[in-house]
Amino acid sequence: MNRSLSRGDTAVDVVIVGAGLAGLTAARELESAGAAVLVIEAQDRVGGRTMARRVAGTTVELGGQWIGPGQRRIGALARDLGVETFPTHLPGRTVFCEGGRRSEYEEDGEIPFSDPAALREVEEAFGALGKLARGVPADAPWRAKNAAELDGQTLETWKLGHELSSGARFYFDLAVESLYACEPRDVSLLGVLADVASSGSFEGLFEIEASAEEYRFVGGAQEISVRLAEGLEGRVVLDSPARRIVQEGGAVLVESVRASVRAGAVIVTVPPALRGRIEYVPALGPRHDGLSQRMPMGAVIKCHAVYGTPFWRETGLNGRAESDTGPCKVTCDNSFPEDSVGVLTGFILGSDAREWGRRERGEREEAVLECFARYFGEKALDTLGYAETDWGAEVYSRGGYAGVPTPGMLLDHGPALQEPVGRIYWAGAETSSEWSGYMEGAVESGERAAREVLSDLSGVVPRREAPVSDVDDLSQRKLAQGYTHRG
Amino acid sequence: MNRSLSRGDTAVDVVIVGAGLAGLTAARELESAGAAVLVIEAQDRVGGRTMARRVAGTTVELGGQWIGPGQRRIGALARDLGVETFPTHLPGRTVFCEGGRRSEYEEDGEIPFSDPAALREVEEAFGALGKLARGVPADAPWRAKNAAELDGQTLETWKLGHELSSGARFYFDLAVESLYACEPRDVSLLGVLADVASSGSFEGLFEIEASAEEYRFVGGAQEISVRLAEGLEGRVVLDSPARRIVQEGGAVLVESVRASVRAGAVIVTVPPALRGRIEYVPALGPRHDGLSQRMPMGAVIKCHAVYGTPFWRETGLNGRAESDTGPCKVTCDNSFPEDSVGVLTGFILGSDAREWGRRERGEREEAVLECFARYFGEKALDTLGYAETDWGAEVYSRGGYAGVPTPGMLLDHGPALQEPVGRIYWAGAETSSEWSGYMEGAVESGERAAREVLSDLSGVVPRREAPVSDVDDLSQRKLAQGYTHRG
Repeated sequence: MNRSLSRGDTAVDVVIVGAGLAGLTAARELESAGAAVLVIEAQDRVGGRTMARRVAGTTVELGGQWIGPGQRRIGALARDLGVETFPTHLPGRTVFCEGGRRSEYEEDGEIPFSDPAALREVEEAFGALGKLARGVPADAPWRAKNAAELDGQTLETWKLGHELSSGARFYFDLAVESLYACEPRDVSLLGVLADVASSGSFEGLFEIEASAEEYRFVGGAQEISVRLAEGLEGRVVLDSPARRIVQEGGAVLVESVRASVRAGAVIVTVPPALRGRIEYVPALGPRHDGLSQRMPMGAVIKCHAVYGTPFWRETGLNGRAESDTGPCKVTCDNSFPEDSVGVLTGFILGSDAREWGRRERGEREEAVLECFARYFGEKALDTLGYAETDWGAEVYSRGGYAGVPTPGMLLDHGPALQEPVGRIYWAGAETSSEWSGYMEGAVESGERAAREVLSDLSGVVPRREAPVSDVDDLSQRKLAQGYTHRG
Repeated sequence: MNRSLSRGDTAVDVVIVGAGLAGLTAARELESAGAAVLVIEAQDRVGGRTMARRVAGTTVELGGQWIGPGQRRIGALARDLGVETFPTHLPGRTVFCEGGRRSEYEEDGEIPFSDPAALREVEEAFGALGKLARGVPADAPWRAKNAAELDGQTLETWKLGHELSSGARFYFDLAVESLYACEPRDVSLLGVLADVASSGSFEGLFEIEASAEEYRFVGGAQEISVRLAEGLEGRVVLDSPARRIVQEGGAVLVESVRASVRAGAVIVTVPPALRGRIEYVPALGPRHDGLSQRMPMGAVIKCHAVYGTPFWRETGLNGRAESDTGPCKVTCDNSFPEDSVGVLTGFILGSDAREWGRRERGEREEAVLECFARYFGEKALDTLGYAETDWGAEVYSRGGYAGVPTPGMLLDHGPALQEPVGRIYWAGAETSSEWSGYMEGAVESGERAAREVLSDLSGVVPRREAPVSDVDDLSQRKLAQGYTHRG
């Protein structure tokens, strides 16, 4: 083993920081091209922002979970790994609460706004965003003709420029919070348009059928990462936060808590907001570091209640609710078809998440269940189990679903999302120009980064076996135990 | 010495992270109240974002340097320490360049916009901002009546809502860039109004006389920190970036590169954007961590040319330029009265800094001098020396002048600027509600944090001598050599 660097327990061709979908996909691609890889993961599990947990005998999806028909990479990857999908679509009526009035609507019916004009206004607003997005290149939104104007304002400003009734404003906000886990004020209009361009239409992101939420994975979305990691057995080191990346003498040294690894290249897959929490020697320049300062994570607490049966279906409800009163303003039926139990999942989003995240767990659980009871009846109070994840409190995600571009970020720092720095390459859902922020984007980014590394290092780095013998015992044990569960 | 924690070389009452004005002020206040302190500084010098260097025989101010009449704390502190001030005001004409046309105007004359209406428009816009700021409480801007509306938009949006001519827009942008080192699109309107409320009027920030730039310090602003550190001899550890802050058993353990210190409390004075780069055990909650994600630093490259004489004065110029063409769109005469040489200082700001920061130093120097020559004549090309600081590349500042509130930050995270987390207290220029982002704000924040600690820990923490015997040799040598110069 080449030990020309003063430190470095191990040497491989490529180190990957982060065992989420992006990192594991990159590792798989590199390995299938013959490269020796090692994946360094901060947590005691793989999957990043996908995470499953057993609660009251069923699997609960704590993180990202849906895919849609335009998302061919994640679909193909799941098929390859033998992870099956099933349709999310459930017949039934959606609960709609506005101004203290609870109503229900059929899936092919009209949303029963108290002001009937609201529906048309919302459709027009979504349509206008879609139209505006047509001028924005998804792979370089900062090159849009009017990029400065679009990146100079928040989505809130754009919204206020359209005279929406209060019902339409509520629904517009709800859609944005559902999609971004942030308020319309937190995100640049150009950033939103870039996402629309990268994934289709705005309303397509929010609907279920033929949308980004059309399918789910049997066993949960984390299963894809678990199987990817199984295919990389011995090349994934858990419990090992990356601390420092040193570039010297044409190589990189990646120092993490449980392993220091020398390599020809490193792919960093942590969200942009967390890139700056790793030390780089030499330091990142202002453009790359500034990106890390200007793409904060959204805020979401995902809450789940498990019931003896999916009781809401008995009265013809599909488990969806849309409400102007929280804490969970959006819910869904999150049961697995093979289980007899029912799971309701509610989202506490944006400012609500920041506010509710500061309260006691018991108080939060009570408010969430009261919310579910308001939507679906008193039976919602009779749970078998409850689980929640405040993604803002997850130290190695620090928010969810994804990073949100603040005004001006794309114009001044956008290229730093992907642009390598010497032998440091970047991946992760936010770095993709196809379904940015989604699992599909994570997979695409992993494939893209692997291609970049293979192209740049072709013939330069001799291939080696990947020895992990000097990674400490605990990590090895964790590897042997599998990757699903949390400490 | 109490060694009940498993690690910790040293024990004091209070550790301060950062030897800038905030940290050193806090240390001084605490020490004068009888507490044992230790200041941990990442760099090989004190002063934070104030920094002086000798260039061609004169002192050059690389960082913060001006104070104004409303800034009583920094003034009093300087007087205490024997650091004298002198007036910045210089008689003479200011150069004004707009649309390729160079003109000059007397200090009591009108700005010679090509469209004379621009002047009135600019004055009206500044006046309107000042009026709007009256409804914003500087110490809790998120409590303003229309806070959601104000924090939902960028300053750019507010500007575009006022029909300004192109000349007025240029000057408005120039003022914002000069004040914030960012573009109007980067900053929340509420954030700007809070700053105006914390420091007086908007135009007052930009003018020289009777403004924030009225006086300078003899020997440079860093001299205040140097003298503060001399008064703390042996209690300032240089070259020692803080890595981890552990709270356990009613105490804190601050781990830094050269010293691990146990204390009753810690005051962290790094800019909010850099707080997240320290590891906290237990981890910070989402509200505090989110602040770190949502207050990016401005971008500035401060450039200086030293000349045999302040030649521009010979032709009646005061060294100030205001221009729509960069890289330095704003300049000033930065000579010290006791020196015979002249210093011109130019600012590359916001997007310009990000763009010019990526070029070679030689190319940048050439463009800066060409700029100076355009404003002040060919003599500007004949330098004795040149110096520049790209504050975005300074690893322990990561931008300048200060952190910029993005839309929505104050509403969701504002209180986290000051709110302690257990025994962790926060200071730094951005955390002050009086002259936030200025040296005055840094001093105020240090005094405030010291008061908080003394009040909370009164009687709890036994006072000890502050031993630094186990801080390593290099730091001790650096301490002995003084704090001014850089590695």
